[in-house]
Amino acid sequence: MDKDFFKTISRAAFAELLRGFAPLAAESAGLLEAHTRYLIQDVVAGENLPLVSRSCMDGYALRARDAFGASEGSPAYMECAAELAVDAIFSGELPPGHCAGIVTGGSLPAGADAVVMIEHTARMGAGTVEIRRSPAPGENVMLAGEDAAQGRVALAAGTRLRPQAIGLLAALGHDQVMVRARPRVGIVSTGDEVVPVTSRVRPGQVRDVNSYALACQVREAGGEARLHGLVADERDALCAALEEALAENDVVLISGGSSVGARDYTVAAVAAIQGAAVLAHGVAMRPGKPVLLARVGGKAVIGLPGQVTSSQVVMIALGLPFLRHLQGDASAFENLGPTVTAELARNLPSARGREDYVRVRLQSRPGLVPLAHPLLGKSGLLSTMVAAGGLARIEAQREGLEQGALIEVIVL
Amino acid sequence: MDKDFFKTISRAAFAELLRGFAPLAAESAGLLEAHTRYLIQDVVAGENLPLVSRSCMDGYALRARDAFGASEGSPAYMECAAELAVDAIFSGELPPGHCAGIVTGGSLPAGADAVVMIEHTARMGAGTVEIRRSPAPGENVMLAGEDAAQGRVALAAGTRLRPQAIGLLAALGHDQVMVRARPRVGIVSTGDEVVPVTSRVRPGQVRDVNSYALACQVREAGGEARLHGLVADERDALCAALEEALAENDVVLISGGSSVGARDYTVAAVAAIQGAAVLAHGVAMRPGKPVLLARVGGKAVIGLPGQVTSSQVVMIALGLPFLRHLQGDASAFENLGPTVTAELARNLPSARGREDYVRVRLQSRPGLVPLAHPLLGKSGLLSTMVAAGGLARIEAQREGLEQGALIEVIVL
Repeated sequence: MDKDFFKTISRAAFAELLRGFAPLAAESAGLLEAHTRYLIQDVVAGENLPLVSRSCMDGYALRARDAFGASEGSPAYMECAAELAVDAIFSGELPPGHCAGIVTGGSLPAGADAVVMIEHTARMGAGTVEIRRSPAPGENVMLAGEDAAQGRVALAAGTRLRPQAIGLLAALGHDQVMVRARPRVGIVSTGDEVVPVTSRVRPGQVRDVNSYALACQVREAGGEARLHGLVADERDALCAALEEALAENDVVLISGGSSVGARDYTVAAVAAIQGAAVLAHGVAMRPGKPVLLARVGGKAVIGLPGQVTSSQVVMIALGLPFLRHLQGDASAFENLGPTVTAELARNLPSARGREDYVRVRLQSRPGLVPLAHPLLGKSGLLSTMVAAGGLARIEAQREGLEQGALIEVIVL
Repeated sequence: MDKDFFKTISRAAFAELLRGFAPLAAESAGLLEAHTRYLIQDVVAGENLPLVSRSCMDGYALRARDAFGASEGSPAYMECAAELAVDAIFSGELPPGHCAGIVTGGSLPAGADAVVMIEHTARMGAGTVEIRRSPAPGENVMLAGEDAAQGRVALAAGTRLRPQAIGLLAALGHDQVMVRARPRVGIVSTGDEVVPVTSRVRPGQVRDVNSYALACQVREAGGEARLHGLVADERDALCAALEEALAENDVVLISGGSSVGARDYTVAAVAAIQGAAVLAHGVAMRPGKPVLLARVGGKAVIGLPGQVTSSQVVMIALGLPFLRHLQGDASAFENLGPTVTAELARNLPSARGREDYVRVRLQSRPGLVPLAHPLLGKSGLLSTMVAAGGLARIEAQREGLEQGALIEVIVL
């Protein structure tokens, strides 16, 4: 495989290649397993939620028109037809001029259309209740179907299942839901200078940082990371390790040495995998240029820069969106994660033609947008990544950003 | 226990009571298990990182002064003393007037202080290299100790272990790190109207939403949620369920019925637990007022509103910060999660004396801060929580916020 065969492509073009991989298989998951994943199908409410109109307060249910104009100075007096427990159903219709004691969550009697809070009422004895407030129709009532209407879509396909969406599924009686499988992601680390974390290092060696940092990122994107260990910078050994990792995973990340020679080994090893098609080599972003993408069957092999900060940024820009895409997130590549709008604290130059990802420290300011301070220092420093609260992206067509500009910062 | 004995206190006062519970026990965790948790102790670098100065580029290492003034038009010519593999160490010192071929990540020979990128050089044959650029000292070099200096704090106690911090620990040779145990959180659900998720509901009944929605929230805050099921609104049964949950967990959440009567049962049951001290009942926030806090031994029992959206908001404002506090997050109660600054799309009234948490939809606008649209609708509607991108907090001393104001929105 000639390393010069591929030319550097834009992040958008690289994302388009990643989008070409089909999302993973559908599976049924229990509610707690479905948390943070993406709904495959619309969820239609099979019944009204709430099923019948319910009170939002402790008080008295009544027809609003029966207490029209009631006030402290001129209360209305009504007969109490019942004191309803939270799960009680009033039989028949509430007679005109009557009210019913109700608790929060209790079902409204047929005919009632409002609840007056208990604070604005008084029991007068002999079943009479004084009403000191004129309620509006619907006041303090959650109407039948107001939270979800029978036959209507309650949660759309593609929805990310946050705790509140899991709650809505439970409310509608779903204890299982269709989502896509979590991506199994194999991580292969290589580089003649790389040694295991527990090793003493001698000059010329570094410890295997990428396996751990990548595994944590994979997990944050909903994937299951499996470490396939450290492999020597040698074509056949690398190729065998990649084939083993491919057999057990949906995606394989290989974090290669950063030098030209080490990259060559990685490209050669990927190209030598049975049935592999190399789709791209090089993406116009900084840090992160030397990224490799190959397809083996329906599975992706992504070659990442060996430099830790570069591989982290490539994951944020392409790898993690890809893992979300595989789980059914339709806007994965447009949405690189939560962002904040911040004001740039100083000019930031950038070469046209590549996307720059600049680490920034975010300084919050009461009543103002936060200030984004670009972190100086060499791009390879992990410590600046540790100090960073976010990444400012400078689009490829821009030559930089000016101090004072409002920018979107990807929160780290 | 008289329910009127406690008066409503501020969120800050409630947080102060929660802060009184000691963080959980320290334990040693592997790097992948430590991810998202909080460092207990400062991590001091036991050696320089990098151990020796390394090249950030493929090129030639040299003394910067030897190529001073070199340019395309007037290159310098130097003898190549070696071609260094990534893990090679040059023996002795680089002779003046010499350079050494080096790859990204390779160790600089003693005496060299800069690297000229290969693009700005040419091999001339007979071991001579043409240098067409005048390098600055330190250029393209990551200096020994620049990422972490031996004997200095590399990661401070209290640091949340994001992927990049896990990477830094790996780089420094730590495969185990001291963190606090994950909180085990028991969830007890109660309410005579509440039925299991898989039940058909009849009018007057609702499904058990809180067990699932709370468990997801607990997990997002690093806790381990255990569902202890649905218990009848009956003092002795509730008390027994709470005692069982306390035996197996560090924290117990009880999501009670929302009505005054149901709340009374919960308070009575909590007060009846052997050794329980009720610390607070009622917090000045909306939604969420009826929150209960008790201490049993060193463990906390938190009584949450039965209404799902209220209990979710109370968790965001108090419960989840508490779980982070137990894990050693020193600023848990000041930092309610990631926030964005947004512009309020319309006036928002609020009663003085209580904190309001208003659901908002966030509309992003290129080059401007996002617009925060308050979501109308009754506070009990779960669908507004599903539609919300964030929560706008209105502090207790304010009477509202004006359209156009810049506000902090807690991202959901």
